[in-house]
Amino acid sequence: MIVRRSLLIALAITATLSGAAHAADDQSSLQPVLNAGDNVLKFDWPAVSVGTGEYEEGPTGVTVFRFDRRVHAAVDVRGGGPGTVNTDYLRIGYEVPEVDSVVFSGGSWYGLESTTAVATALKDDDIRDGIWTNLALSVGAIIYDFGDRRLNEIYPDKRLAQAAARAARTGMFPLGARGAGRMAKTGHIFDCGAYSGQGGAFKQIGDLKIAAFTVVNAVGVVTDREGRVAACYRDKDWPQGELKTAELFGAFPASSKQGAWRPMAQKLDAKRNTTVSLVITNQKLDRARLERLATQVHSSMGRALQPFATELDGDVLYAVSTAELEGPVDESPTPNVDLDIIASELMWDAVLASIPPQQQIKQPDPNVTFTTAQLRSFAGDYVFSPNVSVRVTVEGNKLVAQASGARPAFAIRKENTVELLPASKTEFVVPGRYPTTLSFTEKGKLVLNPGHWQQVGSRKK
Amino acid sequence: MIVRRSLLIALAITATLSGAAHAADDQSSLQPVLNAGDNVLKFDWPAVSVGTGEYEEGPTGVTVFRFDRRVHAAVDVRGGGPGTVNTDYLRIGYEVPEVDSVVFSGGSWYGLESTTAVATALKDDDIRDGIWTNLALSVGAIIYDFGDRRLNEIYPDKRLAQAAARAARTGMFPLGARGAGRMAKTGHIFDCGAYSGQGGAFKQIGDLKIAAFTVVNAVGVVTDREGRVAACYRDKDWPQGELKTAELFGAFPASSKQGAWRPMAQKLDAKRNTTVSLVITNQKLDRARLERLATQVHSSMGRALQPFATELDGDVLYAVSTAELEGPVDESPTPNVDLDIIASELMWDAVLASIPPQQQIKQPDPNVTFTTAQLRSFAGDYVFSPNVSVRVTVEGNKLVAQASGARPAFAIRKENTVELLPASKTEFVVPGRYPTTLSFTEKGKLVLNPGHWQQVGSRKK
Amino acid sequence: MIVRRSLLIALAITATLSGAAHAADDQSSLQPVLNAGDNVLKFDWPAVSVGTGEYEEGPTGVTVFRFDRRVHAAVDVRGGGPGTVNTDYLRIGYEVPEVDSVVFSGGSWYGLESTTAVATALKDDDIRDGIWTNLALSVGAIIYDFGDRRLNEIYPDKRLAQAAARAARTGMFPLGARGAGRMAKTGHIFDCGAYSGQGGAFKQIGDLKIAAFTVVNAVGVVTDREGRVAACYRDKDWPQGELKTAELFGAFPASSKQGAWRPMAQKLDAKRNTTVSLVITNQKLDRARLERLATQVHSSMGRALQPFATELDGDVLYAVSTAELEGPVDESPTPNVDLDIIASELMWDAVLASIPPQQQIKQPDPNVTFTTAQLRSFAGDYVFSPNVSVRVTVEGNKLVAQASGARPAFAIRKENTVELLPASKTEFVVPGRYPTTLSFTEKGKLVLNPGHWQQVGSRKK
Amino acid sequence: MIVRRSLLIALAITATLSGAAHAADDQSSLQPVLNAGDNVLKFDWPAVSVGTGEYEEGPTGVTVFRFDRRVHAAVDVRGGGPGTVNTDYLRIGYEVPEVDSVVFSGGSWYGLESTTAVATALKDDDIRDGIWTNLALSVGAIIYDFGDRRLNEIYPDKRLAQAAARAARTGMFPLGARGAGRMAKTGHIFDCGAYSGQGGAFKQIGDLKIAAFTVVNAVGVVTDREGRVAACYRDKDWPQGELKTAELFGAFPASSKQGAWRPMAQKLDAKRNTTVSLVITNQKLDRARLERLATQVHSSMGRALQPFATELDGDVLYAVSTAELEGPVDESPTPNVDLDIIASELMWDAVLASIPPQQQIKQPDPNVTFTTAQLRSFAGDYVFSPNVSVRVTVEGNKLVAQASGARPAFAIRKENTVELLPASKTEFVVPGRYPTTLSFTEKGKLVLNPGHWQQVGSRKK
Repeated sequence: MIVRRSLLIALAITATLSGAAHAADDQSSLQPVLNAGDNVLKFDWPAVSVGTGEYEEGPTGVTVFRFDRRVHAAVDVRGGGPGTVNTDYLRIGYEVPEVDSVVFSGGSWYGLESTTAVATALKDDDIRDGIWTNLALSVGAIIYDFGDRRLNEIYPDKRLAQAAARAARTGMFPLGARGAGRMAKTGHIFDCGAYSGQGGAFKQIGDLKIAAFTVVNAVGVVTDREGRVAACYRDKDWPQGELKTAELFGAFPASSKQGAWRPMAQKLDAKRNTTVSLVITNQKLDRARLERLATQVHSSMGRALQPFATELDGDVLYAVSTAELEGPVDESPTPNVDLDIIASELMWDAVLASIPPQQQIKQPDPNVTFTTAQLRSFAGDYVFSPNVSVRVTVEGNKLVAQASGARPAFAIRKENTVELLPASKTEFVVPGRYPTTLSFTEKGKLVLNPGHWQQVGSRKK
Repeated sequence: MIVRRSLLIALAITATLSGAAHAADDQSSLQPVLNAGDNVLKFDWPAVSVGTGEYEEGPTGVTVFRFDRRVHAAVDVRGGGPGTVNTDYLRIGYEVPEVDSVVFSGGSWYGLESTTAVATALKDDDIRDGIWTNLALSVGAIIYDFGDRRLNEIYPDKRLAQAAARAARTGMFPLGARGAGRMAKTGHIFDCGAYSGQGGAFKQIGDLKIAAFTVVNAVGVVTDREGRVAACYRDKDWPQGELKTAELFGAFPASSKQGAWRPMAQKLDAKRNTTVSLVITNQKLDRARLERLATQVHSSMGRALQPFATELDGDVLYAVSTAELEGPVDESPTPNVDLDIIASELMWDAVLASIPPQQQIKQPDPNVTFTTAQLRSFAGDYVFSPNVSVRVTVEGNKLVAQASGARPAFAIRKENTVELLPASKTEFVVPGRYPTTLSFTEKGKLVLNPGHWQQVGSRKK
Repeated sequence: MIVRRSLLIALAITATLSGAAHAADDQSSLQPVLNAGDNVLKFDWPAVSVGTGEYEEGPTGVTVFRFDRRVHAAVDVRGGGPGTVNTDYLRIGYEVPEVDSVVFSGGSWYGLESTTAVATALKDDDIRDGIWTNLALSVGAIIYDFGDRRLNEIYPDKRLAQAAARAARTGMFPLGARGAGRMAKTGHIFDCGAYSGQGGAFKQIGDLKIAAFTVVNAVGVVTDREGRVAACYRDKDWPQGELKTAELFGAFPASSKQGAWRPMAQKLDAKRNTTVSLVITNQKLDRARLERLATQVHSSMGRALQPFATELDGDVLYAVSTAELEGPVDESPTPNVDLDIIASELMWDAVLASIPPQQQIKQPDPNVTFTTAQLRSFAGDYVFSPNVSVRVTVEGNKLVAQASGARPAFAIRKENTVELLPASKTEFVVPGRYPTTLSFTEKGKLVLNPGHWQQVGSRKK
Repeated sequence: MIVRRSLLIALAITATLSGAAHAADDQSSLQPVLNAGDNVLKFDWPAVSVGTGEYEEGPTGVTVFRFDRRVHAAVDVRGGGPGTVNTDYLRIGYEVPEVDSVVFSGGSWYGLESTTAVATALKDDDIRDGIWTNLALSVGAIIYDFGDRRLNEIYPDKRLAQAAARAARTGMFPLGARGAGRMAKTGHIFDCGAYSGQGGAFKQIGDLKIAAFTVVNAVGVVTDREGRVAACYRDKDWPQGELKTAELFGAFPASSKQGAWRPMAQKLDAKRNTTVSLVITNQKLDRARLERLATQVHSSMGRALQPFATELDGDVLYAVSTAELEGPVDESPTPNVDLDIIASELMWDAVLASIPPQQQIKQPDPNVTFTTAQLRSFAGDYVFSPNVSVRVTVEGNKLVAQASGARPAFAIRKENTVELLPASKTEFVVPGRYPTTLSFTEKGKLVLNPGHWQQVGSRKK
């Protein structure tokens, strides 16, 4: 089957050799949204700047970490589907600070454009150049935020990443569904489908500073220190009340059963994830110590994200030392491990801080009724992207919808129509495990799940 | 300082170039104890045999896993102080089953002799030979079980490992302080000093078999699924009742403060550890899948052992496939990850199964009294090993002890005498956080902490 | 000193946070030159397409390898300064073909934009999308072609790489200073300063196909099978006639003495290099075999490039299997190694095929004379890039030049003026080990070293 | 087929679970031969001691490198069949010198016992102990010297390695077929079957010292700086006179055609090899620099050994710094690479120094005749090891031989008898590409290829 597809691809390649880009893939009209978000981690560390950029239309985004000096960095790769830039150089491990920025991005492998973009911005801004000792070194990693979680393939591109890099500011890190975490989700292994985001935590002990940042997009569930699942759209058959991660594992694999918008055809995509993380300290650490920090903190994340480091994730962690502080400040007999332990606990805090308020599941309102004529005013073909369209029609006195493009639109499938139940004068819902609200606007738009993660389709003329 | 010691070492080397081995290091009179222990995990898997060997005089031991065919194996190294044999060959990753045995051993790097010993036994027993396609391939790893936890440097040697390999049997795995886990401990990062051991767990789902084995010797604490510390000698100032690992981290670094027998001079040794693990499945897995299994299971162990993969550990995990079963048996859309998840939960079970009943702390009995003459009958120099001796003397009407060799003996230090309080007609104790019971035998022996981990000294004539 | 520069950089960063890109860094007006070059390796392999793109103004370029199906790939990194994208994913090593393209580029780390650009082009062209199983996977590596070898910092960007990807064609590979090898050089360790390029070789044995491609930019010298240096601007004190690499090593480090345009201030840059290579076979190879192919071929390159894999190089080799051919076709007892050996010999051929005709050193012509007025017509400030300008003035009746920007221009230094000796009515030379010809055009341009690697400056008004 | 063999093995395992070692595998009566050999590299470096141990009966041996202080070490693994101990610890890369010894050994994976043996000797000799900061750290690697190159499976064991370690002396390194190189061979890829050994080279430049040592056992041919094959038993159809490595590759794969004693049944064994190497400098190098030294020198060995790093080799190189000398002494702009280059050239010298005088091929002497009775006095079953016996019989008036054990004995095969042609009153030969001389002694021994690599069989009573 793979072979057969290869042949088709071969034909496609031939066909497009002289072709131009698909118009719909042109991102030049998208507006970068920079440093958005009111829920912000504040921290006192002039050496560390953070800039976020988002394209609302995705939504998707990028988070750029810049430093006011070159820093030392190490990397630990544990997931089964990583996307990285320049990690081979880090592994050489010279005892010279050389890294200018760490870039996390949505958009899967396409989003790696963000990492090189920040290096180029530094060159264009005359901070770095082509002299060997003054080259810009940007490293990065991406999360998978495509698939059935959104209805388009917009990715954080060079323009967005450079804007975020230039907007970087010290002392503030937006929490929740911001930056690279704009379209992050967690818990797909149990079909939780929870919305996620980016988290951060900071601690200062005397002169020692440690910060932990993470874009939480794990196939596993976020778990707090009491063992509770932090966010999950539950299956209707599950117990309500407190939900423990250990319970989900105890019932595994039954607890991973298929949810409303994960039919088999889409199964693998729904379960593609990746968590990317960054731990920074101002303590000077040699290469082995920095790698130990990366290793221990990354291993510790298996507590906050369960499961972790799976084949379905592409987990990558960077450890950075700004080397502002010489030597350990701790009187402990094991100062290195102490630092690693404190950083690991901070990382757990950071993971917990990543969770945004979840999208509410709107219920149908039996008191709302429409005339057939009114229903017909909603009918139409709504285009979300080249591959996703929804056809809304009236059957009898019901409004129904069906996906009419190459891919489904959440609970609106290609195989059959689904009834849309009225929830208000402009809103309909498809009841189920996950939010599926359709809001029709006066301007001929269909907004799926209005709110922070909404998807907007336009009625075809 | 390092340089200065190097000079001394240089002199030492010169001095001993023509010298013979220290007589006290001769292990030829030690008696191998094979497959000891009543607390046994039983499992139905003819392909997997386990043999354990122990030297009571250490105590220390070795655990040998043998297979009835050559198996596929991968390795994941995460700790900061690993000791391994032949892992480079595993990393080449040929799709041919070649591994004959996995060997875990006490004795730190000296214990690696156990791994090569099993290969040689296979050759000597005419199962393998020197033909390239029939070479014996044994891989292994060790734990650090020296330092201030025992008073000698006996290690599992070739003779012990070969005896254990030849005694290997299917279906039974001794739990607790047995085999390579004979002198394992955990929780030193919080000065818990808990006795530990080796654990195992087995699960069969249809034809699919998975087993998890581990020698738990972590600097971290064993943590159960409720977040509780599974074993720890607590500091007297700590709350009694349920002890949560999260509480210890919350109070860190205060919770890692120095215990009764960990003065600064010994600090680093007390906190040297290592957990070595093995996960086996009968499902055939290609190289990438087998490495994913190793990665995910090893990452998951950060839940059961907190902290994990520190600089003070040398954590190594081997993943083995016997390839008896073709393809995944699971109908799941993500069968590989399902296997990894189930194996990870099993490994948590295995860690929990490793904990032996702890050594009781004996209390002094105020009703027991001695005459000075009686006390004098206990006095003497008791030799535990070339480096450890205890001088018992009478001061006034008290019995006191002081370490008189190069190293201390638990709470009996070199710096000063410590009073021994009567607990019975032949036993004395040094009260404190950890067990320190001295039992004098009629044959002129001094037994420290009589029981499973006892140390025996002989009165110098 | 590093710290001090960091502070300056910090200021610079602050200053530019809200700034826009330097106008001079805008590459949007550069014209991609695609598939240029008459010296072409022809090969019969429909599965493999090659596209090259060049910016003459650099010069610099990119070489894109595309496949008509997804292919298996492995990577071997040996140099001390690699620049790579997505190698971590390759190392996971799934037995599924997933790689769409391999991209080699000039422009050092900035040139990595080329690798992600090709993936995005595949998405934009609707060959790939965001579905996990249909993501575009592009891997790549870069060479260092900045420093004192050219007078600007133009790099192969997204636009150039996408144009090259779309222009890819089967059966043809341009040899010499083309594509990513447009500004490659070799032999800097001996100050040879030879111009280099990209090479390729192809062999078919029955149904078995093997191709070797390489962008040769080594700090070492290209060496043929007779041990001769293939290209080198020799020091005037060196013997003429046949030059053996072994002789250069025999005289090392004297043979690495400083050349005419490598004063100490520039020393490290002149000696930054990197050779990136690709070996492709149509034989299906599992992961271990593919990695063995990469390892053996890369190791073998130490014969053709001496020295190789140094700290000053960033050598990376990708091995690709199109898996068109099942199993080894060879009756040899060691078919895998046979393949590796044949591929290694091909790679040596490929290296030798990379060398372009060298830039001739023009001699002054004592018969050419100028009046002072004529000389004055050449005078002026010629701007090559924001950092490089040359001031030409008349001293007495001599024309002299001095670098007036931040960086020197080959033999025209910042420290002092150098006399320009007439070579023709419009050309002057600076005699020395390396070519330094200045050609003044009627349009107020100064062309340095007219020809394939020329640098063009414009007279400031 | 593999599965079927596994079943047999399973039965074998069961059968021997309670069995004892094969008497013939008992090596306790073998006599260690220490520091043998008159052809010695002398070098002035008190920090470095070398001890060799050999068992003539193999022959096989071990080479132990000891240091008068703990040293820094890095490792580079490039071959397809490595055997190593404790390399994972080296890769952690602490900036603390910890390595006590590097051990090279014959005996394939069984020979790794030599590495742990040296660590244990240091403990037994009271130089090291069980305290974490004073553990002995020994690293090592092995070569494959079994297969059809010798008629037994004797390997360098603990006793031999400890004796060699204790006999280590400074300033002398035996060259040729000594120590671990006692039974080394090269060139099997071209069926050269040349005898090889261990080589060394030393250079001092001012205070800087560099030494290169290698046990050359490559499947490739040793190649000198003129491109000539240094040692090879040529095929009779090959040209005589100077033999260039490039010629052999040019004629490949024809040049790898089967030789006289490599029928297909033995093919893989004959072509199993491995070269293990050590480069030492007294300059202090941090981890990245030490790894660069290892990488560059190991890559450079592809010139002296062609092919190199194949699947049939297990090439491993250790790089060691004694850190006696702070900082680079070189005024070069690229001191690190200079060091690596010089070390690489030294390693080539070391490889060339490894070749011993080859075993002469004795010719039959037509003037020597025997009576049938005389011939009968030679007849008998000669046992070389449990697996190899040769039956000598008289057929008509000819002496013939046939292998009667499980394996052949060089040109004396199992399939048929081969005529033994008289060469002297006690010697017979089998003409062919390789030496096959049979010498009958008065004491009922049959010596195959009398001389340095002779194999001795005893007539069965």
